[in-house]
Amino acid sequence: MDFLNEIIDAIEPPDKSFYNKAMERLSQQARPEGSLGILEPLSARLAGIAKTIDVKLKKKIIVTCAGDHGIVDEGVSLFPQEVTAQMVYNFVNGGASISVLAKHAGAEVRVADIGVNHDFDEKLPIFHYKVRKGTSNFAVEPAMTKKEAVQSVRAGIDIVKHLVDKESVDMIGTGDMGIGNTTPSTAIIAAFSGIDVEKLAGRGTGIDDSALKNKINIIEKSLIKHKPDPKDPIDILSKVGGFEIGALCGLVLGAAQYSIPVVCDGLISTAGALLACELAPYAKSYLFASHCSVEKGHQFMLQSLGLKPLLDLDFRLGEGTGAALAIEIIDAATRVLADIKTFEETGINNAQK
Amino acid sequence: MDFLNEIIDAIEPPDKSFYNKAMERLSQQARPEGSLGILEPLSARLAGIAKTIDVKLKKKIIVTCAGDHGIVDEGVSLFPQEVTAQMVYNFVNGGASISVLAKHAGAEVRVADIGVNHDFDEKLPIFHYKVRKGTSNFAVEPAMTKKEAVQSVRAGIDIVKHLVDKESVDMIGTGDMGIGNTTPSTAIIAAFSGIDVEKLAGRGTGIDDSALKNKINIIEKSLIKHKPDPKDPIDILSKVGGFEIGALCGLVLGAAQYSIPVVCDGLISTAGALLACELAPYAKSYLFASHCSVEKGHQFMLQSLGLKPLLDLDFRLGEGTGAALAIEIIDAATRVLADIKTFEETGINNAQK
Repeated sequence: MDFLNEIIDAIEPPDKSFYNKAMERLSQQARPEGSLGILEPLSARLAGIAKTIDVKLKKKIIVTCAGDHGIVDEGVSLFPQEVTAQMVYNFVNGGASISVLAKHAGAEVRVADIGVNHDFDEKLPIFHYKVRKGTSNFAVEPAMTKKEAVQSVRAGIDIVKHLVDKESVDMIGTGDMGIGNTTPSTAIIAAFSGIDVEKLAGRGTGIDDSALKNKINIIEKSLIKHKPDPKDPIDILSKVGGFEIGALCGLVLGAAQYSIPVVCDGLISTAGALLACELAPYAKSYLFASHCSVEKGHQFMLQSLGLKPLLDLDFRLGEGTGAALAIEIIDAATRVLADIKTFEETGINNAQK
Repeated sequence: MDFLNEIIDAIEPPDKSFYNKAMERLSQQARPEGSLGILEPLSARLAGIAKTIDVKLKKKIIVTCAGDHGIVDEGVSLFPQEVTAQMVYNFVNGGASISVLAKHAGAEVRVADIGVNHDFDEKLPIFHYKVRKGTSNFAVEPAMTKKEAVQSVRAGIDIVKHLVDKESVDMIGTGDMGIGNTTPSTAIIAAFSGIDVEKLAGRGTGIDDSALKNKINIIEKSLIKHKPDPKDPIDILSKVGGFEIGALCGLVLGAAQYSIPVVCDGLISTAGALLACELAPYAKSYLFASHCSVEKGHQFMLQSLGLKPLLDLDFRLGEGTGAALAIEIIDAATRVLADIKTFEETGINNAQK
């Protein structure tokens, strides 16, 4: 925990003076004031983070964190656990949904094994940070120890450190892969908020009514059994979380530590982001919400974070697919701020002054 | 009108068999069925239009149609009329909002003068289709004659013909520039729908409460004075429309005639699209809604067209800015359909069958 406390203490809010400079330039551009809506404060936030009003997001990487879940023993998912590992190979081979959408966004995809129930060849070009081959079934016992929880968070932080130091990355997108992982994600928002599980749980990959009822029941019983402390994110993560969710929390903490923007994807990525912002409230200043998922719990997470998502396309896929599309809009916002000319630069009459 | 009737008769619905082939491939991709939400039917619509499931939108052009409005004499806008011409130069010089966002989307911008109150040099690289130097003040007399209305629609159709025949364009985005043009656009949706003007009128470039009240009053009185026929789009266009709005209608008709997708921008562009789809109902099959504007009338137009917008970013700018961002998402949808591998291609277990 000492390591984590050091990181948390090191996270500072972005530079307000560049935010203000950006808002001033936006108000002078040759167009009605405020006419580019939410892209305006968004671009100013990026300016505050980058300490310049000419923000260049040259290298954008989506980190898709993978892990398996003991809770699948309870029949909470439509797909068998082997699919997690199969999808990791699909990401590496470039045929997956995130491969296609990241390429379109001019971003790279990196897969991180945080806890997949499969032995990957060490030479496979993924981040190898396996904590264990899948969490324990949290209907029976805690998903992981507190030490493992911190280890999974550290994996995410170390990945950002590597990407910043060795690859000069300018922006991180988050993504997930893990059969069964809407169940721990829903348990996490339930533990933080105290909202009825029935209002939060969704169909994941597409379970039917009876499986959904079972999923709700499992989450409710597990929360009663383990009593995770709503004020202790590591306690929640260890009792009802997942290894990849810990790493997704670490990605947000790492991005905040290194002052780069981080875009979270859907339910699972946002569960990680929520843990990060509960651990280090300033981390929220570096966090951007990409989209609103069909999964019901997601909107409660976004409300809890006070973030408005950029997109609402009825996605329910994960992998980082929503983050990839949002990266295109965020990148466009940087050009809005830097490249649209002002009334003065163009000599156009400004009736607003 | 003979010319227009010929075009309308020539518009056919897209190929349903390619739509179906696309939906079949989407359902076989290695991800939960339906998990990419509204991008799935959207990409299938594009397949139907292009008659292939590997849709390539290589050349994308946003046509920003400009015109002036006699109704500005009534004090409906914050900006003086000269700004329309000044902004045309700003578009040509590449410093405007649409210049920046189109470049980001990999699209080109072309400006069309349909009725600007300014003499542009013939050598200026814009489409020269001026009908007249601004409409008449429709608080006093009809905005234009029926002949002028048809001429403005024809301008849009001829521009698409040129872009398809001479420049092999694959997709059109629409955009507008015209000081005062939220007033005719609001009058158009009011004329079609019969909805109270008070529920439809917005603040345009940012008018205050008293100017908004005046704008509502002017529109109400003009509709009572001219009694535009809700079943006759050319009657509505001529009495309370605008030259650029007629051309925006023509762009949609032209795109439908030449079987290419067309993405409409905000309030003014969608007013043109609404006219087009009332003239030729099949045109709607080629039309995609980019975003939902802050202007209140826009959501009523989208409802009337039965189109769900891709974005909701609180834009209220026009120029084609919403269309530009949406083009990035539509382009991504073509890659989703063609490039995401199927369960069979990847050998991943499909639990859904």
